[in-house]
Amino acid sequence: MRYVYAFDYKHRRPPMDMKDLLGGKGANLAEMTSVLELPVPPGFTITTDACRAYMAEGWPRGLSDEVAKHVSRLEKAMGKQLGDPADPLLVSVRSGAKFSMPGMMDTVLNLGLNDASVEGLAKQTSDERFAFDSYRRFVSMYGRIVLDIDTREFDEPLEKAKERLKIDSDAEIPAEELSKLVELYKKIVKRESGKAFPQDPDKQLRGAIEAVFRSWNGARAIAYRVRERISHDLGTAVNVQTMVFGNRDDSSGTGVGFTRDPATGAQGEYGDFLVNAQGEDVVAGIRTPQEITEAARLASKSDKPSMETALPKAFAELTRIYKALEKHYRDMQDLEFTVEKGKLFMLQTRSGKRTAKAALRIAVEMAKEKLISREEAVCRINPAAIDQLLHPTIDPKAPRTVIASGLPASPGAATGEIVFSADEAELLKSQGKKVILVRVETSPEDIHGMHAAEGILTTRGGMTSHAAVVARGMGKPCVSGAGVVRIDYAKGTLAAGSHQLKAGDLITIDGSTGQVLLGRVAMIEPELSGEFATLMRWADAKRKVGVRANADTPADARTARGFGAEGIGLCRTEHMFFDEERILAVREMILSDDEKGRRAALDKLLPVQRADFVALFEIMKGLPVTIRLLDPPLHEFLPHTDEEIAEVAASMGASTEKLKHRAQELAEFNPMLGFRGCRIAIAYPEIAEMQARAIFEAAVEAGRRTKAPVVPEVMVPLIATKAEFDLVKARIDAMAEAVAMETNVRIRYQVGTMIELPRAALLAGEIAKTAEFFSFGTNDLTQTVFGISRDDAASFLGIYTNKGILTVDPFVSIDREGVGELVKIATERGRKTRKNIKLGICGEHGGDPASVAFCVEIGLDYVSCSPYRVPIARLAAAQAELGKSFTNEG
Amino acid sequence: MRYVYAFDYKHRRPPMDMKDLLGGKGANLAEMTSVLELPVPPGFTITTDACRAYMAEGWPRGLSDEVAKHVSRLEKAMGKQLGDPADPLLVSVRSGAKFSMPGMMDTVLNLGLNDASVEGLAKQTSDERFAFDSYRRFVSMYGRIVLDIDTREFDEPLEKAKERLKIDSDAEIPAEELSKLVELYKKIVKRESGKAFPQDPDKQLRGAIEAVFRSWNGARAIAYRVRERISHDLGTAVNVQTMVFGNRDDSSGTGVGFTRDPATGAQGEYGDFLVNAQGEDVVAGIRTPQEITEAARLASKSDKPSMETALPKAFAELTRIYKALEKHYRDMQDLEFTVEKGKLFMLQTRSGKRTAKAALRIAVEMAKEKLISREEAVCRINPAAIDQLLHPTIDPKAPRTVIASGLPASPGAATGEIVFSADEAELLKSQGKKVILVRVETSPEDIHGMHAAEGILTTRGGMTSHAAVVARGMGKPCVSGAGVVRIDYAKGTLAAGSHQLKAGDLITIDGSTGQVLLGRVAMIEPELSGEFATLMRWADAKRKVGVRANADTPADARTARGFGAEGIGLCRTEHMFFDEERILAVREMILSDDEKGRRAALDKLLPVQRADFVALFEIMKGLPVTIRLLDPPLHEFLPHTDEEIAEVAASMGASTEKLKHRAQELAEFNPMLGFRGCRIAIAYPEIAEMQARAIFEAAVEAGRRTKAPVVPEVMVPLIATKAEFDLVKARIDAMAEAVAMETNVRIRYQVGTMIELPRAALLAGEIAKTAEFFSFGTNDLTQTVFGISRDDAASFLGIYTNKGILTVDPFVSIDREGVGELVKIATERGRKTRKNIKLGICGEHGGDPASVAFCVEIGLDYVSCSPYRVPIARLAAAQAELGKSFTNEG
Repeated sequence: MRYVYAFDYKHRRPPMDMKDLLGGKGANLAEMTSVLELPVPPGFTITTDACRAYMAEGWPRGLSDEVAKHVSRLEKAMGKQLGDPADPLLVSVRSGAKFSMPGMMDTVLNLGLNDASVEGLAKQTSDERFAFDSYRRFVSMYGRIVLDIDTREFDEPLEKAKERLKIDSDAEIPAEELSKLVELYKKIVKRESGKAFPQDPDKQLRGAIEAVFRSWNGARAIAYRVRERISHDLGTAVNVQTMVFGNRDDSSGTGVGFTRDPATGAQGEYGDFLVNAQGEDVVAGIRTPQEITEAARLASKSDKPSMETALPKAFAELTRIYKALEKHYRDMQDLEFTVEKGKLFMLQTRSGKRTAKAALRIAVEMAKEKLISREEAVCRINPAAIDQLLHPTIDPKAPRTVIASGLPASPGAATGEIVFSADEAELLKSQGKKVILVRVETSPEDIHGMHAAEGILTTRGGMTSHAAVVARGMGKPCVSGAGVVRIDYAKGTLAAGSHQLKAGDLITIDGSTGQVLLGRVAMIEPELSGEFATLMRWADAKRKVGVRANADTPADARTARGFGAEGIGLCRTEHMFFDEERILAVREMILSDDEKGRRAALDKLLPVQRADFVALFEIMKGLPVTIRLLDPPLHEFLPHTDEEIAEVAASMGASTEKLKHRAQELAEFNPMLGFRGCRIAIAYPEIAEMQARAIFEAAVEAGRRTKAPVVPEVMVPLIATKAEFDLVKARIDAMAEAVAMETNVRIRYQVGTMIELPRAALLAGEIAKTAEFFSFGTNDLTQTVFGISRDDAASFLGIYTNKGILTVDPFVSIDREGVGELVKIATERGRKTRKNIKLGICGEHGGDPASVAFCVEIGLDYVSCSPYRVPIARLAAAQAELGKSFTNEG
Repeated sequence: MRYVYAFDYKHRRPPMDMKDLLGGKGANLAEMTSVLELPVPPGFTITTDACRAYMAEGWPRGLSDEVAKHVSRLEKAMGKQLGDPADPLLVSVRSGAKFSMPGMMDTVLNLGLNDASVEGLAKQTSDERFAFDSYRRFVSMYGRIVLDIDTREFDEPLEKAKERLKIDSDAEIPAEELSKLVELYKKIVKRESGKAFPQDPDKQLRGAIEAVFRSWNGARAIAYRVRERISHDLGTAVNVQTMVFGNRDDSSGTGVGFTRDPATGAQGEYGDFLVNAQGEDVVAGIRTPQEITEAARLASKSDKPSMETALPKAFAELTRIYKALEKHYRDMQDLEFTVEKGKLFMLQTRSGKRTAKAALRIAVEMAKEKLISREEAVCRINPAAIDQLLHPTIDPKAPRTVIASGLPASPGAATGEIVFSADEAELLKSQGKKVILVRVETSPEDIHGMHAAEGILTTRGGMTSHAAVVARGMGKPCVSGAGVVRIDYAKGTLAAGSHQLKAGDLITIDGSTGQVLLGRVAMIEPELSGEFATLMRWADAKRKVGVRANADTPADARTARGFGAEGIGLCRTEHMFFDEERILAVREMILSDDEKGRRAALDKLLPVQRADFVALFEIMKGLPVTIRLLDPPLHEFLPHTDEEIAEVAASMGASTEKLKHRAQELAEFNPMLGFRGCRIAIAYPEIAEMQARAIFEAAVEAGRRTKAPVVPEVMVPLIATKAEFDLVKARIDAMAEAVAMETNVRIRYQVGTMIELPRAALLAGEIAKTAEFFSFGTNDLTQTVFGISRDDAASFLGIYTNKGILTVDPFVSIDREGVGELVKIATERGRKTRKNIKLGICGEHGGDPASVAFCVEIGLDYVSCSPYRVPIARLAAAQAELGKSFTNEG
């Protein structure tokens, strides 16, 4: 078995397809060298086979010979020898597994230095300081990584030296001091490892290679593989590469570049360059980098020469390579290079990270350049990143003081005055102020305050808590579950660590990262480019699954249409109940002792509810609208504090006693599993009747106005048995009939149900006998399948993802194995009974790309998500249809 | 097609197998007449075929002829003619569907009476009053049932007549007044139906037959069939039968009888008899009935002659029939008979209802008499009724004042003083008083009070609420969810309707019926007869599935063994945490800020927990014991009221602030779906470690003492993913290893999990890779599959069963379609992965006969239930094994 391949070895397959054998880095270097024939510092890769052999039975037979052969080939190519006291060849040794993996040995640089060759390096670079610093670093790196010596052993003498010399930075340590440190380091190596630091470069190399092999089974690497479900059998490759130096003279230099602007996507060479410098100097930011092109220099008004001027030959070569790389990899590349004595060396290339805006422009332009197909362009965009395009974001360059962190519950950023109640939010908003609503948690009663606020911050609740769900629906930034924040409603203050804030103080929240920031922070406003529309058009051309929006209000519905929603998949009627003018009638209904009283209160609600639906139907004209009957437990509508109760009692003319007693009666231990959903419609059919009547009357009216007949889909929530559904459906059908008789207009409508309980999924075949559509309520299904309340999950879900028990929050991305299996079962059984049953999903998962992919796979008819996620869903659906998810991250 | 069969028609099959055609009543009459050849008043049955034909296309062709032919056959046999003015033949017309069905036409008696024949009846019975009363009843019955006239039309003149005559009872109305009423009734019929009351008996008969047919589609009958899932296509049969009169003279009479004593099961003729009387006289209880046998007369010291003396010939015949009936039906019979002029007529026979005690004695004795097999004897006992034998019951003869009704949560009855807190219960108990603990609901903190109380009454919660489950476990009576009862803890009072009671007042609760009674009520103490042991022995001989008990304390464990448990299927370790001396350490653990603090507190708990297990292991010596790790949310252990918090804070030396804050932190919206089960073991592994150590150390110690090695089964609760299980199992295994090293004893043990979440059921194949046993926690599985919190279900579950949405509370009897399918899926997937995986059930369903049958069907290895239900489970399991459920109710 062959264990070693030079980078220039002509493999039969493209090296990038051989990551199993060569590892990611090795494949990349081989691809650049052997396929693209770029000037890469020569080197070789020891395969993962060698690593596996080593793990099985120690240092593989024949490996030493192969390595020696390849080293001498390197020496010949470079005209230098490892350990040569005059002009030594130096190499780097790097691990490179199939998947990049934190916790594994990373890099040993400058291997080949010893007491003799360090002098050669000093002479060759005319930089004694550099040579000894390189040696010092090599010894400590080798000691730490290969010999497993505690890094503090080396750091301490270094710090002491700086103290003694009264200097701050390593770069100021003079050469002779570095030379002394090397001597000291070698003593430390001897003391700690029991053996002298190896002067023989071959021994150094073997040590480093073995260290890479061993690091595969380091504790952190194993833990990482467990978490990421990477097989322990893969092993890692080892890359040994000639070192080149950008700091030899003024005809040398180093730089990083992008083939297009990673911030905007604009075409043209882009990058930073430093003459007479090493890679780390660029990264360290001590010297201001120079521009690559003369044009960029002029644009930035830099007085330092561009690479184009300073190193014209290398620049020309680099320009050629930029083009070649894009053509070969068919994507924007992020590359590193070094120029040694005028000669350009490519060190690395990979797909470049980019902003969402840049990704969009690059994908669309590459498709127009015919570099990639439209399908590929569609697949190049991370749907999740589209959020960045739709919401204001915090300027990455702006200084920020983070005072707390919570969950990134709804994307975008907002600044405003702190308010602690919904009423206050509304009041200040009416005075023209911008506010952030800060609550322990929100409830449906806070809706008006959430509408008024720029953003919402809660100290409890997860990604699908009330605040998070509603904020996403409204497209407002929200940080939820910021547990470190303590609110004192009575005093009107909040504490976050050492920060004490009060109502009226300014804060900024970043719903994309979960950060809470002090004061006002600079923002970047979203800008929907022409490329956005182009790409969405291409996506829609490939998409088969419908995309609807969850929308409860006319404003939601308008936003949804603007983002391309093809109907409403979920209208939560209860949100219409919380309006200040209506809540009284709702409470009256709940407090009534008998059906007659309830009907009287419902009579007051009928016209307003009907008006709501008329508005929705008009906006969605011709498109399907799914309306869910009242779902939440009735106690959500009752006031809670003594003060509020007294107020409501007074305004209703009811006794405080009675109100309290009813509230107590309705209180529940586990409201999620309580008296809600269709259970309300079963106990108080008159509520469902009022809602059904409002729907059908509104459909008649909207149809008359728009001339486009609406097709309402009436949805019964929380079904566990077919009998429940049938009882409620009978009431709905009766109302449809009554309205048809009264108005002489017969509306086409469907009656269906949410599938949000495991039992409903299992019994889907039965339920489909009478239900005309299913909408999967995967929020509640996830809660019941996992037995996890989304409102209480914060206390342990973090531990779960940290320990790798869950790789992703199941409320964010659908759990394919559990929840997914039930959705599949229901899909199959439902279709078996009723071939053309309409199937959709209206949980929060409808806007999650991975979940949308699942929905496409199992063949749902549509997904429904909050309006702001509609573009995400459209894109994710197209990608799923194309059989892949986005692929631009290297 | 033939539509009519005489009772004496010789069918080819036993008539009792022909209920589809003849209906239940018709089959019974035909069986008695044609097979047993008993003296039954002759008659004929019009088949369900005729009813179906009538529903499809009106009065069937040829039916009139067939009826006429059979009527004249009757006339010949009786020597009388329908409508004969001298000595008329009278008949009854009764409906009789396959299943007895409320809401259908029941009976028209005395058909054949008209203005002329009433005189003949008067003459023949020498009782003008009787004749006219019969006629009056016939006219009103006919008017109401056949002609659909409102019953009030007939009731009103009757009431007025009584007012006028100043008499109270119908029986006092003289003949001439009855004659006038008949005339009035006929006018009412004319007015209301538009037609004169038919004088022609043939027309009367046809009208009655049609009325029976029509009643099949009456609203109440349809609703009943929907609820009971009876097909609407069955139709009903109609029975026309000669009337006989027990009130003709002193050689006539009527009676009811049982072939054995229905209260005790004792052998011998048993019954009541009245000379010169009609059946309704016996039922009305106006006259004191006479005994059947002379022996019984002597025993009851009655001065009225027994039937044996008064009508010796009829008695001899009856005695013969008693024997023949038992021999034929092979069960105790409940029969009705009439003697007309010395001739005995059998009117009905059916399996007799009996007490559990009688059922047991009859079944065992019949098996010993070889009348039935032992297997049949086992199947004759309703397992649910065994509860009656194990608990005191309220004397059915005792007067009672029911002040409220709740759910029959735990069987048995108890009397005691009202107490409103657990501490008070304990205090009064220590003073020798008997108390009933009355709470809105109970929580684990009330355990000591429940132990001290005779019974528990709660105003909230269902059949599987905390109170219900714990009470059943303790074998104490409990009425739960008595919503009408209002408790005022502060005042120490309760109100139930108009009744106001205070602490210290006596009440009695009947946990078998759910009744709450005022004061002390007479009880019957249970008595375990020799037949009980015999029958259980026969049952065990047939049973294959194991029966274990859910037992948390040594007392539970002892009771369980006494009732024949074959191990412990569920030991809830948290119940051990509430003991007053331990709760402090538990709270200390919860309040600790770090692992070190928690470990210190756990160190205090280790010895007590170990001692608990040692005791359990010793009692169960050699039998398997399944111990579940800590399951409930931690906040259940913290105090709730300000007072309690202050007290605990003081005794712990912690600040009230801190305690409150921690309690707030731990509070949850939906604790059922919160931070509990294995989630605690994942977050605080040290708790699981302490418990595992306690288990293994106890196993070593108990093994040393008893010389019988225990096999602990350590159970991880609330698993949703394999990763959770593996993490916790690793800790348990490590503890086993540590204890083995320390003690030099290696314990055989298993680690398994509860399957109580839908996801665990679906992923059972995965989980079984490492889990060695599954125990189905069907309580929680029912909660999550249905999305119903058992603590909150009371508010709508009643409506659900009333409306027929659910036929049975799914927390009482397993839902085969939903929960059952998941249990089956988990069983199949678990066994596919691990062939010999041990499977059991430990939810409340483990003690429910129908659920036990399900467990036997799907092949579980054992069921586990509360100790008092162990005999029930043993019997139910045997019956399931024999492929049938009990069958003694006619």
